[in-house]
Amino acid sequence: MVPLAVAAAITLNQSAAGATRLADYIRPFVGAQGEGNTFPGPSAPFGMIQISPDTDTTNWDTDSGYEYTDPTIQGFSLTHLSGTGCPDLGDFLFVPQVGKPEFVSGTKDHPETGYQSLFSHAVESAAAGYYQVKLQKSGVTTELTAGERAGMLRFTFPASDEASILTDLNHVINGGRWRVAQSRLRIEDNSTITGFHLVNGWAKERYLYFAARYSRPFAAAQIISSGKPVLYQSYVNYRFRSRNEAAGTNLQFLATFKTRAGEVIQVKVAVSAVSTANALRNLDAEIPDWNFDKLRETTRARWDRELSRIQIEGSQEQKETFYTSLYHALLVPNLYQDVNGEYRGFDQNIHRAKKFTAYTVFSLWDTFRAEHPLLALIQEPRDSDMINSLLAHYDQSADHLLPMWELQGNETWCMIGYHAAPVIADGFLKGVKGFDAQHAYDAIKTTAMNPDYDGLAAYRKLGWVPCDEEDESLSKTLEYAYDDWCIAQMAKSLGKPADYDYFLNRAASYKNIFDPAIGWMHAKDANGHWRTNFDAHLFGGGTNLQDVTEATSSQYSWFVPQDVPGLIALIGGPEKFVRTLDSLFAAKQSAAFKSELSADDLRGCIGEYWHGNEPSHHVIYLYCYAGQPWKAAELLHRVVATQYGSSPGSLCGNDDCGQMSAWYLFTCMGFYPVCPASDYYVIGAPQIPAAVMHLSNGKSFSMTAKNISDKNIYVQSVRLNGQNWDAPFLPYRELKNGGSIIFTMGPQPGKTWGIHAAVPQ
Amino acid sequence: MVPLAVAAAITLNQSAAGATRLADYIRPFVGAQGEGNTFPGPSAPFGMIQISPDTDTTNWDTDSGYEYTDPTIQGFSLTHLSGTGCPDLGDFLFVPQVGKPEFVSGTKDHPETGYQSLFSHAVESAAAGYYQVKLQKSGVTTELTAGERAGMLRFTFPASDEASILTDLNHVINGGRWRVAQSRLRIEDNSTITGFHLVNGWAKERYLYFAARYSRPFAAAQIISSGKPVLYQSYVNYRFRSRNEAAGTNLQFLATFKTRAGEVIQVKVAVSAVSTANALRNLDAEIPDWNFDKLRETTRARWDRELSRIQIEGSQEQKETFYTSLYHALLVPNLYQDVNGEYRGFDQNIHRAKKFTAYTVFSLWDTFRAEHPLLALIQEPRDSDMINSLLAHYDQSADHLLPMWELQGNETWCMIGYHAAPVIADGFLKGVKGFDAQHAYDAIKTTAMNPDYDGLAAYRKLGWVPCDEEDESLSKTLEYAYDDWCIAQMAKSLGKPADYDYFLNRAASYKNIFDPAIGWMHAKDANGHWRTNFDAHLFGGGTNLQDVTEATSSQYSWFVPQDVPGLIALIGGPEKFVRTLDSLFAAKQSAAFKSELSADDLRGCIGEYWHGNEPSHHVIYLYCYAGQPWKAAELLHRVVATQYGSSPGSLCGNDDCGQMSAWYLFTCMGFYPVCPASDYYVIGAPQIPAAVMHLSNGKSFSMTAKNISDKNIYVQSVRLNGQNWDAPFLPYRELKNGGSIIFTMGPQPGKTWGIHAAVPQ
Repeated sequence: MVPLAVAAAITLNQSAAGATRLADYIRPFVGAQGEGNTFPGPSAPFGMIQISPDTDTTNWDTDSGYEYTDPTIQGFSLTHLSGTGCPDLGDFLFVPQVGKPEFVSGTKDHPETGYQSLFSHAVESAAAGYYQVKLQKSGVTTELTAGERAGMLRFTFPASDEASILTDLNHVINGGRWRVAQSRLRIEDNSTITGFHLVNGWAKERYLYFAARYSRPFAAAQIISSGKPVLYQSYVNYRFRSRNEAAGTNLQFLATFKTRAGEVIQVKVAVSAVSTANALRNLDAEIPDWNFDKLRETTRARWDRELSRIQIEGSQEQKETFYTSLYHALLVPNLYQDVNGEYRGFDQNIHRAKKFTAYTVFSLWDTFRAEHPLLALIQEPRDSDMINSLLAHYDQSADHLLPMWELQGNETWCMIGYHAAPVIADGFLKGVKGFDAQHAYDAIKTTAMNPDYDGLAAYRKLGWVPCDEEDESLSKTLEYAYDDWCIAQMAKSLGKPADYDYFLNRAASYKNIFDPAIGWMHAKDANGHWRTNFDAHLFGGGTNLQDVTEATSSQYSWFVPQDVPGLIALIGGPEKFVRTLDSLFAAKQSAAFKSELSADDLRGCIGEYWHGNEPSHHVIYLYCYAGQPWKAAELLHRVVATQYGSSPGSLCGNDDCGQMSAWYLFTCMGFYPVCPASDYYVIGAPQIPAAVMHLSNGKSFSMTAKNISDKNIYVQSVRLNGQNWDAPFLPYRELKNGGSIIFTMGPQPGKTWGIHAAVPQ
Repeated sequence: MVPLAVAAAITLNQSAAGATRLADYIRPFVGAQGEGNTFPGPSAPFGMIQISPDTDTTNWDTDSGYEYTDPTIQGFSLTHLSGTGCPDLGDFLFVPQVGKPEFVSGTKDHPETGYQSLFSHAVESAAAGYYQVKLQKSGVTTELTAGERAGMLRFTFPASDEASILTDLNHVINGGRWRVAQSRLRIEDNSTITGFHLVNGWAKERYLYFAARYSRPFAAAQIISSGKPVLYQSYVNYRFRSRNEAAGTNLQFLATFKTRAGEVIQVKVAVSAVSTANALRNLDAEIPDWNFDKLRETTRARWDRELSRIQIEGSQEQKETFYTSLYHALLVPNLYQDVNGEYRGFDQNIHRAKKFTAYTVFSLWDTFRAEHPLLALIQEPRDSDMINSLLAHYDQSADHLLPMWELQGNETWCMIGYHAAPVIADGFLKGVKGFDAQHAYDAIKTTAMNPDYDGLAAYRKLGWVPCDEEDESLSKTLEYAYDDWCIAQMAKSLGKPADYDYFLNRAASYKNIFDPAIGWMHAKDANGHWRTNFDAHLFGGGTNLQDVTEATSSQYSWFVPQDVPGLIALIGGPEKFVRTLDSLFAAKQSAAFKSELSADDLRGCIGEYWHGNEPSHHVIYLYCYAGQPWKAAELLHRVVATQYGSSPGSLCGNDDCGQMSAWYLFTCMGFYPVCPASDYYVIGAPQIPAAVMHLSNGKSFSMTAKNISDKNIYVQSVRLNGQNWDAPFLPYRELKNGGSIIFTMGPQPGKTWGIHAAVPQ
């Protein structure tokens, strides 16, 4: 490894030297096949706009709009979710066509019934800030690039008297459920349009505006309503209508051109959640010229800069996988503020952010685990902005709640818990600056005391969420307890001993639902009776039960990151703990278990461990608490080798806005935030030869894995900041000032290292 | 009459002296029965909020929501149109209930099927800024008052454990057609709510927000969706929902209270077209306290002030009718700007008005005739704001058009012509200050040159709008020609002789569609052939034809206000002109003519003259151009006596945002703006003993009608500013500096006065 300053210099000079730049390791197709649910199109780091091809809108599992195995592309829309488990966005589809234009999408099986087109991966490519494809039907080559709020589409047409670009405002990645409630289109001048739609989607009331400037004046410009041109005079409801604007629920815009062979038409686009005026402001501020390649290079350079925050050594494959993971981790949350500082708040009022930049897309049930802990280390200013965004949401919430799963100013009420608490507490305790700690503490405490929220009142009274009163009670009890522990940590730091005691007491609630008779967490009713017919190895706790969130109790029972020693004691000591863990990975999946997971999901399974979903993410590391870190090393290597990679199908589960990728990044570097808001990481086993992490505080922390190879996967010894280090725990204090961790790896389980250290409590 | 200074002093002192105040002559029920389409609820002059009872939402002809003969009241909504011919608004209905609350309106015949209630006019009253009624079902007395952007509802409940106030966001005066596309509700605290809806109505995409503060904390507060309480936990689309906010298309809010007998609960309400935040700002800025009576008195005093701009002598009935007419004339256009200066523009972006106050509801086809000419004289600052609002609309228009029929940031494309031109030109030539004359001229010229607008291109080429290419071609040709004349006048004043010549030439286009063979205007096709099967005495020109707008050619043929001498010549000289006019009033209505008008409409008919619609409004005055002003006097008296009054059913046609009333006001004072943007008014015959008009320039112009009585209806002589005045034309120059006109009235047609004067050209 090279020290920070040299590394930075290298990064900056790589371009000039013609060496491979970090951004060039990005493989945007990773996760685009199967359950990864990523999108291949260009985006700036944490960008507001993500222009990407859509192959599907109605399939519930194609949540980014793109499935690699689909045969057709519908067009290119401006916004995309990365790795979520619910579909939404896909706003404003642009479709180049040649010949008689089509106004419906058509079907994959019969693309001739609409505007969608067959395509081949042979004529498709993607890179940092860039995507291109040649559509079979029209022969048009489309290239995409994106800045922060604005991007460009570059279409290369064949010769045609009927070349056109359709913009479909009714296109939304809707999973077959969502709908456009209102839309509007305006032809602003002979080469500019603006538009808007209001979508009743996963986000119940989502407003998005756009602007588009074309590099050539329209030969003809037509607004289409429900597939028919909007005529100037119409007696349907309105005695007259404009040719230049229309409102309705199924609007499209058709720009027509005559093109020479190879003629390029470019479209600059921008979005805003505030207004078309702001979309135009965003567009003109970010892309004053018509230089596609310059914009692409700017974004590529942004990726170089962001990726250089962790520099690694490794094989080409390792670098591709690592930097693509880092790319995915730095795509989301998304900027949600216009160039003039305005953003749409959670109260749907337009606000001007004071002293912070507003972000959206908070998949907190996922991202509190490793994504935000990563951002706290290497994206501190942005993590601060994100925490301020969470607090703004709280301030604007009618329920006085921090967000649960925020999407463009909406609470989707998706998933469980109040995991803004660990995000805020971890950020605070890791030194993230720029937010009001007292206000933040008030917000997480108020959220955790809300008498209406998901069984919280009963939880406070009983010590558990009762399964006869609340769904997903087992998972909620466990996650509340952890969140409460995070609040306690912040209370302690802020000098609030009474609050500390109170929340620490709540943090022990997990004990109330551990059932020694079955050896697993067990849903319990308000009278203290265990749920009958409960099966710890079935999803939800058994057929038609809703006790466990997207998981089995055998997966969820491990969620006591705040007190693993306590959990070990509950289960019956370290040996039984390890045996129980072993049984998870060795379990023979029952037919009922399999029936709940699709083939794709099973790809992420090791026994009943399911890496494809977040409740399992910390589980492997628990071996380190029980004196058998070599078992963690073995499984970590297995997961890295089988569930990640640089191919479209490499991701075994939803990337979930970077969480799946952030797991990989930490794991490769040899440690993982099992318990965010604690003062330590768990040391697992590094998966790459070396890494240096440039912390936002200016310090650098390097990792070296001596002798690492496909066979040398076990940690033999560790030196931390020049000292021998026997504990499989990395205190934050050893990391934050920079330094180094040096692993010596070997082919045999290093059964002497890491087995005797005191376990953090 | 008393001179201005004395009159003003009297007005100010009337209250203290206990004398009748001008506002107390207002009879808000006038026009609420039949076709008048006014609303009885309170509004400040030109106010943004109009809180009023709604008796109907689905009947196309109950456009203000209230029909006096209806037996039931649904509730009290916050916004209303005054006198329009299309339904809209009626936003946010408040319904007091006692006992089990109902969530649907029910029917007039079976009010027990919903929340609407029988009521009696015996327990209902209305006055300036005030309305009250006791609802039979609940026994609740409701009182309403309104400021500019905010108002109050005061409910007096019986004793009940189940008293409630429902707010229905899905209630819109929809004529059976319009729909709420999206709505949202938030419980802000224990006594405050905010909400929003987006309505696809007459205004295609209309956003309105509201805020409501209750004088007592809610005992219970519940959001209702499609008639059912929004439960906290629901698996319908969303895994959890808030009790404190909801979005959807059929939302209601139910505030529940326990009440003692006679207990008063007040609700302060405000609206905004920008945001709920602005609705709250409007509310708190305008009504900082809970003093209903103070707000009522403030608005009553505002009406005193505005009504005192014309002070009259006359009988109680005359004063009631006159001041109610003035009230109706000063209700609309409506303020459309929040206390912080923000308003929703025609481009649906939020703007901050620069150096003007934004207004909405421009029923220009109606109001260019007498309403805006009246405002130019006595409301010059507001007329300036309105002209600036028209210009802002133009600036924001995708079509580069001044508005046609603007409603809350939407172009309804209702009616014909480009009558922002006469409004602007008349204002400019009457000395209305505060707008950019050059910009205004550019706007009206650009509008009049628009190649896409309603047959304008053909009109420019041919000299008429061809009936085979464009509907309502006859009316459009006539109105374009007049509007063009207005543009010419402004061009002349601004020193643009080429433009003056060009538009003056266009202004003569009316000649191209006069058919000497039938003696009327006649629709003509692009080849110059007259429409066959055309009937000048049938609506639209005959069965299923659309050549004439809401009228017959026998009514429309008189629309050449810019060149009545030219029209006289076309028709065949003064005598034939008069005979033809006589025939209009004497015509026996054919069955086909009657079949097009309802019984209500026929009430406004004198022969084929139909005072209930605007094309007829100037026609009686045309006798004055042909040397027979006594015939005008006779008919004016007849119309005033039969088509106006102080009863609910007094108005014979849509008040049309004040135009019907403004006709009455001018006519009573003895003169009328037959040709706005000209430099003269036509002297008809006064209908009241005396009046003094306090012009906005500080001057006062008084009218005295000596010897006037029910029999002495004919003008015998006139003294204008101390001189004998023989012409039935009142030059603006004689009015603008203040002065007096003194009529001497008599029982016989004064066939010597007004017959020889030169006709203005």
